[in-house]
Amino acid sequence: MKREQILEILNKVSSGNLEPEDAANKIKQTAFEDLGYAKIDHHRSQRQGFPEVIYCQGKEPHQVAEIFQSLVKHNDNVLATRASDKIFNKVRHLIPQARYNDLARTIIYQKEACKTPNSKYGKVALVSAGTSDLAVAEEAFETAQVMGAPVEKFYDVGVAGIHRLLNFYDQLTEASCVIVVAGMEGALASVVGGLVDVPVIACPTSIGYGANFNGLSSMLTMLNSCASGVSVVNIDNGFGAGYQAALISKLDTR
Amino acid sequence: MKREQILEILNKVSSGNLEPEDAANKIKQTAFEDLGYAKIDHHRSQRQGFPEVIYCQGKEPHQVAEIFQSLVKHNDNVLATRASDKIFNKVRHLIPQARYNDLARTIIYQKEACKTPNSKYGKVALVSAGTSDLAVAEEAFETAQVMGAPVEKFYDVGVAGIHRLLNFYDQLTEASCVIVVAGMEGALASVVGGLVDVPVIACPTSIGYGANFNGLSSMLTMLNSCASGVSVVNIDNGFGAGYQAALISKLDTR
Amino acid sequence: MKREQILEILNKVSSGNLEPEDAANKIKQTAFEDLGYAKIDHHRSQRQGFPEVIYCQGKEPHQVAEIFQSLVKHNDNVLATRASDKIFNKVRHLIPQARYNDLARTIIYQKEACKTPNSKYGKVALVSAGTSDLAVAEEAFETAQVMGAPVEKFYDVGVAGIHRLLNFYDQLTEASCVIVVAGMEGALASVVGGLVDVPVIACPTSIGYGANFNGLSSMLTMLNSCASGVSVVNIDNGFGAGYQAALISKLDTR
Amino acid sequence: MKREQILEILNKVSSGNLEPEDAANKIKQTAFEDLGYAKIDHHRSQRQGFPEVIYCQGKEPHQVAEIFQSLVKHNDNVLATRASDKIFNKVRHLIPQARYNDLARTIIYQKEACKTPNSKYGKVALVSAGTSDLAVAEEAFETAQVMGAPVEKFYDVGVAGIHRLLNFYDQLTEASCVIVVAGMEGALASVVGGLVDVPVIACPTSIGYGANFNGLSSMLTMLNSCASGVSVVNIDNGFGAGYQAALISKLDTR
Amino acid sequence: MKREQILEILNKVSSGNLEPEDAANKIKQTAFEDLGYAKIDHHRSQRQGFPEVIYCQGKEPHQVAEIFQSLVKHNDNVLATRASDKIFNKVRHLIPQARYNDLARTIIYQKEACKTPNSKYGKVALVSAGTSDLAVAEEAFETAQVMGAPVEKFYDVGVAGIHRLLNFYDQLTEASCVIVVAGMEGALASVVGGLVDVPVIACPTSIGYGANFNGLSSMLTMLNSCASGVSVVNIDNGFGAGYQAALISKLDTR
Amino acid sequence: MKREQILEILNKVSSGNLEPEDAANKIKQTAFEDLGYAKIDHHRSQRQGFPEVIYCQGKEPHQVAEIFQSLVKHNDNVLATRASDKIFNKVRHLIPQARYNDLARTIIYQKEACKTPNSKYGKVALVSAGTSDLAVAEEAFETAQVMGAPVEKFYDVGVAGIHRLLNFYDQLTEASCVIVVAGMEGALASVVGGLVDVPVIACPTSIGYGANFNGLSSMLTMLNSCASGVSVVNIDNGFGAGYQAALISKLDTR
Amino acid sequence: MKREQILEILNKVSSGNLEPEDAANKIKQTAFEDLGYAKIDHHRSQRQGFPEVIYCQGKEPHQVAEIFQSLVKHNDNVLATRASDKIFNKVRHLIPQARYNDLARTIIYQKEACKTPNSKYGKVALVSAGTSDLAVAEEAFETAQVMGAPVEKFYDVGVAGIHRLLNFYDQLTEASCVIVVAGMEGALASVVGGLVDVPVIACPTSIGYGANFNGLSSMLTMLNSCASGVSVVNIDNGFGAGYQAALISKLDTR
Amino acid sequence: MKREQILEILNKVSSGNLEPEDAANKIKQTAFEDLGYAKIDHHRSQRQGFPEVIYCQGKEPHQVAEIFQSLVKHNDNVLATRASDKIFNKVRHLIPQARYNDLARTIIYQKEACKTPNSKYGKVALVSAGTSDLAVAEEAFETAQVMGAPVEKFYDVGVAGIHRLLNFYDQLTEASCVIVVAGMEGALASVVGGLVDVPVIACPTSIGYGANFNGLSSMLTMLNSCASGVSVVNIDNGFGAGYQAALISKLDTR
Repeated sequence: MKREQILEILNKVSSGNLEPEDAANKIKQTAFEDLGYAKIDHHRSQRQGFPEVIYCQGKEPHQVAEIFQSLVKHNDNVLATRASDKIFNKVRHLIPQARYNDLARTIIYQKEACKTPNSKYGKVALVSAGTSDLAVAEEAFETAQVMGAPVEKFYDVGVAGIHRLLNFYDQLTEASCVIVVAGMEGALASVVGGLVDVPVIACPTSIGYGANFNGLSSMLTMLNSCASGVSVVNIDNGFGAGYQAALISKLDTR
Repeated sequence: MKREQILEILNKVSSGNLEPEDAANKIKQTAFEDLGYAKIDHHRSQRQGFPEVIYCQGKEPHQVAEIFQSLVKHNDNVLATRASDKIFNKVRHLIPQARYNDLARTIIYQKEACKTPNSKYGKVALVSAGTSDLAVAEEAFETAQVMGAPVEKFYDVGVAGIHRLLNFYDQLTEASCVIVVAGMEGALASVVGGLVDVPVIACPTSIGYGANFNGLSSMLTMLNSCASGVSVVNIDNGFGAGYQAALISKLDTR
Repeated sequence: MKREQILEILNKVSSGNLEPEDAANKIKQTAFEDLGYAKIDHHRSQRQGFPEVIYCQGKEPHQVAEIFQSLVKHNDNVLATRASDKIFNKVRHLIPQARYNDLARTIIYQKEACKTPNSKYGKVALVSAGTSDLAVAEEAFETAQVMGAPVEKFYDVGVAGIHRLLNFYDQLTEASCVIVVAGMEGALASVVGGLVDVPVIACPTSIGYGANFNGLSSMLTMLNSCASGVSVVNIDNGFGAGYQAALISKLDTR
Repeated sequence: MKREQILEILNKVSSGNLEPEDAANKIKQTAFEDLGYAKIDHHRSQRQGFPEVIYCQGKEPHQVAEIFQSLVKHNDNVLATRASDKIFNKVRHLIPQARYNDLARTIIYQKEACKTPNSKYGKVALVSAGTSDLAVAEEAFETAQVMGAPVEKFYDVGVAGIHRLLNFYDQLTEASCVIVVAGMEGALASVVGGLVDVPVIACPTSIGYGANFNGLSSMLTMLNSCASGVSVVNIDNGFGAGYQAALISKLDTR
Repeated sequence: MKREQILEILNKVSSGNLEPEDAANKIKQTAFEDLGYAKIDHHRSQRQGFPEVIYCQGKEPHQVAEIFQSLVKHNDNVLATRASDKIFNKVRHLIPQARYNDLARTIIYQKEACKTPNSKYGKVALVSAGTSDLAVAEEAFETAQVMGAPVEKFYDVGVAGIHRLLNFYDQLTEASCVIVVAGMEGALASVVGGLVDVPVIACPTSIGYGANFNGLSSMLTMLNSCASGVSVVNIDNGFGAGYQAALISKLDTR
Repeated sequence: MKREQILEILNKVSSGNLEPEDAANKIKQTAFEDLGYAKIDHHRSQRQGFPEVIYCQGKEPHQVAEIFQSLVKHNDNVLATRASDKIFNKVRHLIPQARYNDLARTIIYQKEACKTPNSKYGKVALVSAGTSDLAVAEEAFETAQVMGAPVEKFYDVGVAGIHRLLNFYDQLTEASCVIVVAGMEGALASVVGGLVDVPVIACPTSIGYGANFNGLSSMLTMLNSCASGVSVVNIDNGFGAGYQAALISKLDTR
Repeated sequence: MKREQILEILNKVSSGNLEPEDAANKIKQTAFEDLGYAKIDHHRSQRQGFPEVIYCQGKEPHQVAEIFQSLVKHNDNVLATRASDKIFNKVRHLIPQARYNDLARTIIYQKEACKTPNSKYGKVALVSAGTSDLAVAEEAFETAQVMGAPVEKFYDVGVAGIHRLLNFYDQLTEASCVIVVAGMEGALASVVGGLVDVPVIACPTSIGYGANFNGLSSMLTMLNSCASGVSVVNIDNGFGAGYQAALISKLDTR
Repeated sequence: MKREQILEILNKVSSGNLEPEDAANKIKQTAFEDLGYAKIDHHRSQRQGFPEVIYCQGKEPHQVAEIFQSLVKHNDNVLATRASDKIFNKVRHLIPQARYNDLARTIIYQKEACKTPNSKYGKVALVSAGTSDLAVAEEAFETAQVMGAPVEKFYDVGVAGIHRLLNFYDQLTEASCVIVVAGMEGALASVVGGLVDVPVIACPTSIGYGANFNGLSSMLTMLNSCASGVSVVNIDNGFGAGYQAALISKLDTR
């Protein structure tokens, strides 16, 4: 709660328009809805510019559906990640307009007016190393998209055939932000980081042979990037990469 | 090399103003200076908006000094990181205007005109958890600063006394980007991430007791942040955090 | 065996009421029942204030049922953890009053008189970060409860929306002990630790994306907590957290 | 800030005894002192029952001395940990009554009246495995002591000669809480945990041969304890163990 | 693109045989085919002497089949690794001549003329430690074979019965390169490395009991080999070992 | 091949009883049978006192059966470990006298005369911590047994109720060697190691909660044992523990 | 305390030769000497056949000297490990007959009669891989020696030149027990394990390049040994290897 | 010992030119010199094409000097690695022609005739990422050089400025083998691996910030390389990379 809001409440008290007891409640009161098993943070879209995102892993299908429905009531866009088919079926039952991307495993609801990316935002370039990284890349795509960022995809341009990447050099340099999704050794992030002058958000994936150790290898590669301007999100966290890229894209309203 | 540049060269060939042999050299030619032990990438400031940064670890003092001098000739700003006293003394000998921050262990050279941050850039908020994290925070500060970003510092506001952080809530929400520097368990990144609607660049430090494992603990914390909009740089990599933040700050010319 | 007990036996020997041979047996004799595959420690409730708890993983359903039955004969409360449906069915057959919590995967038997928490004990506050952590939190709940501690639940109050937690600040400060259950980056333990003046028992969970490494991340976070007064149990060990909290709760008979 | 305090302020506003503007400041105002490099949390002793503790690692001697002095002004007891000789000399200059334990590396200031442990608190038993673990044990001792808890020491009672531990069985069972400090394989925590019916706070140390991996081995041992009622603090974190034990000791005012 | 190729294009421009615009396109143009989800690198066989290899993990069967078909059109040999039965069935539908090794999980297509190893190449000796390592060894075999290298197998000659290996000493010394495939402790690589004077390519496998940690143990063993002339590929990466060995075999045209 | 055997061959050559060519073959010749996928080391029972043991993991049922049959022809005792039901069925078909322990997952063949332990060997005490460790303990039991060692079992005597172990103190001190099988924190090995004056072979198991990390915790505990006279085998390697104990038991023919 | 001893005491009580109170003390009484900072376990030589060994790391020189002196009074042999020059000087002052091995860093005291190994014990073969492993090997040597075992050394016989080891094959097969000390990849343990039919005690050392990770690599190698009859002690724990080998050697009184 | 050599000895026995006893000795006899602390493997240059290399770490200066001298007597080239100044001074005393590279920390002795690389061998390209990796690169250089391979250096061509590497594309494609030395994230190995059609030997270095974990990051990157034809040596093992490259170079006598 910001200082101005507190001051406004206090002025009402001072002017006799609000009882002290009520004012105290107001100040303490928080903006969440309590479903018992979950406390939905309706205040988040004001605080963070986007509503709470539903992380489906470990939640019951009916729980996801109820939370989803509750969020739809208060927001223009809603996103659920790591959603199974089974969960989508429950959600669709309550919110028929919800859309499922089975590769990304995301469920998205957007008011009609929100379905086109915001043309005033900077462009996000989404680069991925191999076809095996598609699921994570698509999660990043759906996330950035639902937050209003225009996204251009450059898939399967890993460093084993670096001319494929260099071919898109011009397009990459036009973006406000680049997401790099790569598994195995994750070298792509460093190479892209050395080519562009905008922030690179690197997302390691768990794709690979033995010593990849479920993404540890590509994660360490990206954290140690010798190129400047690279920051990293969690392994397989396409959502996190897309979210961060969209936040950056919004700043670039040149 | 961009398509337009290639086209321009080819047009000169076509119009007879350039020999094919010379054009081929031009296209292949790269913009680096070869000092034997190092190849200085003078092309980088065009490609990435800032000249190559000198990472001093493992380099001889005289090598750093020579590279520094070479960069000063071609650029308005020069930055060297992880620099010892001994290295600074060598550099100062060649470049008397160079400035040393002994906490951050950075050497900086800035043309007079570059010494004030660019007022059109968005503000960077630099938050650190404890006084023990100062060295890393200062490296981030110097880096963002030398790249032209205005930086506001909020030091020693760790989560063990969360009212210290909440006290600065309003100021934090005015930044274009927040850097969080924290060691021990690194929880500060998640808390800040939950409060603001701009990108948070989290920098783990190696400060802490035993199971911190030289920063591994805070690094994992930050990568697993339950708050959205947090991306992570390497342990103790204040430079990387400052660089990424400055890139974001430049985009925000609202 | 305590000194007084030995002395008592010896006095009987001295007074001719006990044969030396029988006394030696008595002293060496231990209070456990041998089922062949298991040695049930019936002495534990005297020694530790609560009977041996059955850890079901790796045990055959019929083994669990027999051990459960044996414990019911000697104790007022019996607890089995990590129990599958299949195991519960075997147990219920022998002990119809046994109760199953399928989220917590616990089986509990309580004599009628033990079903209400001991009002003289201090209150345990049970705080969990996200709905995905519910299973572990419930295991902690059932454990503390069966040991007689009054427990109040505060679920889904993770740091990404810190106002949800701060909203319950007053209630938290009234507890004798706080359990914090959190996965992902586990930052909640530090934040709670900074708010209260009673022991915090932190229980990391294995919930999370890639670099969570099955709970390693949250475990390290909690062990490195910058807040004082936090100690940690094993990953997903809701039982351990509940047990420790109940022991503390019993001390607080103010 | 608690609800009652907010209500009190609001009542003053309502009754005209306080200007809204001043009230807003009061509500937002936080209780810390800003030394530039540090924000001293003077509010902590109210919130947590003990003032902020100074962790000296990574701080300049003069910084520690200034923070120490500032804390002495507001509190009855002050504690600094991981303090070198050099730091103590700076502190002693400003606060001549400060006392140094060079084994524990702690600096302690206590008002005369605070020098005897609070006889109403429960007793803390402090058990350590080997003479090599003394430094960590002493840090735990000083910490619990300065917080007012009566502490009894049982040093060098490792499991390789288990009769040494069993010899003190009666004394151990009289404590409200047991701290176990052990390096190498840390098995002592499990053995003690199986003997007593009060909370055991286990503190792994980094003492040991190769595969101890700087305390990792004993830390994992303690987290995996097959005995119930054991929770764990960070490696070599004698402070953390002493603090947690003192909090528990305070609850036990039987 | 090599300098000569650029020069040739420029000469055409200079002589008026090519428009500058077309030349620029040619220079930028890269040799890959875009299937949407994949960019097939047809240039690779020129650049690396063997076409792109299809790594099937994480790809849909129909995707593999289409990529396979596209590669068959442009190349004499095609290899897919980590292929399931299901994938092979899809591929066989499009390319009936494709052959499946279900132990190695490879799919291979070879033009008739390529089916015999190149007799001018040096021989590859393929040594494996135990029968449990066969799958990885066979992947190495198929890979080296399809690249034209003659391969001789020495299976089940682990160091627990070292006379089995020593028995083949003469044959081993005749090879140009030795592949060693071993799980558990991987000691075989060091022993072989100490016996021969040609490069040893060591491939750790994930076969083994607990502390093998999915191949970590044998991988570390091989990287630390006290014998010189041993280099290592990823865990279970029979393909990588076979590929590297074939490259070496090609050099040895004595 | 020992020096005497070489000398014997050479004497035959010298006396004209053996052709040089045949002698060379004899010297180089090794005692193994080549099944193609496996080289059975029939020489092992001479060299190591027990025939090659079949590790079934990763082998086809028919392969195990053939190797088993081949070993039965040359030896009095045969052991296969990690054998599934399916594998046993194949083996039983060829060797009807084979016996299966489904808890230990071992298949054993013993000539009638070998079925009783060798009474001249020292006794092996087999101690296990919990009922969940039974499978590993049974593998150790079967292995030591088939090698002729008399084994006495002490199951479920973990340190959480240390009186259960102390109760068997006298019996333990009579053994020539003690095997300790324990998961979770594995503290039992240190406690036993501190009680007896014979070699303790410690076998960690993968039983436990999260930070057990599949046996890493108990393995490290045992390697770091503060008690002397403890050596360790691989995680879950009951076979290795039983084998080592039997070797020691054979030495003790007092 | 064994059953017979208890019975004896009780008989004295029964016959009136001992007061019950005194008997209780006797039973509870333990055999250690309390130096304040240390509790010397004088009972150990009865219980374990060798007195408590002094591990010097982390102890003050004067503490070591006092403990050493106390042990000399009660025992024929005394051993201190990890002793610096400085510590030895303190010890020598009190016990002039003490002997220092500066490579092994051991201090040894032996009564004249104990200086020759016990000829009735089996021989220990001590094998080490490289000259860099000498310090650890010597610690093993001194330990086994002081416990009375005859030891034969085979140094610098690593697997990179396996003929050096095979050359000593006959001698190795005559030992009762083999110690293998090896760093780097530690393959020597498996090779020796495959050659002999007696227990192999493997001791990994921290000698090696990068991915040796301070002995982790050789430790894992040894734990995963494909040869049977190998058990492992801690990294650089020459003492542990020598102790275990001596215990085995004592059993072999053939 | 090869079959022909055994046959030759036997023929001499058969023809009466050699006594059986002497022949047995000859067969058993091994080619090493015993210095007590070391067994010098003079047979190695025959067996492996290059004499035993002296790894100086952990050896006394005088030991290195003696081994060096012994090797010089039997060989044309001698190499010592990880040698300090102090060691070199000892060696120089005995072998004045020895040469020291203080960056590489190597000591080399070459007969005059061996000082020029063998022009018939293929060329080794030695690529390094940054100036901080020079020490490791130089160790690789000296090693390959002393083994007779011609080496061309390409230093400081890391992927952050990829045009520096691409500039040397033509030269790289002319080599028989490429060594890639890189720290930080080690991405250079993958990029080079994607450009050339010869074996790439990748050598990770320990250069870098925090999450490099002393080279673990670059090592994992290289092991997971998405480019084919890359095999890896130990961290900082310039020697191993140079040795393997020289072996490959020797095969390529086109």
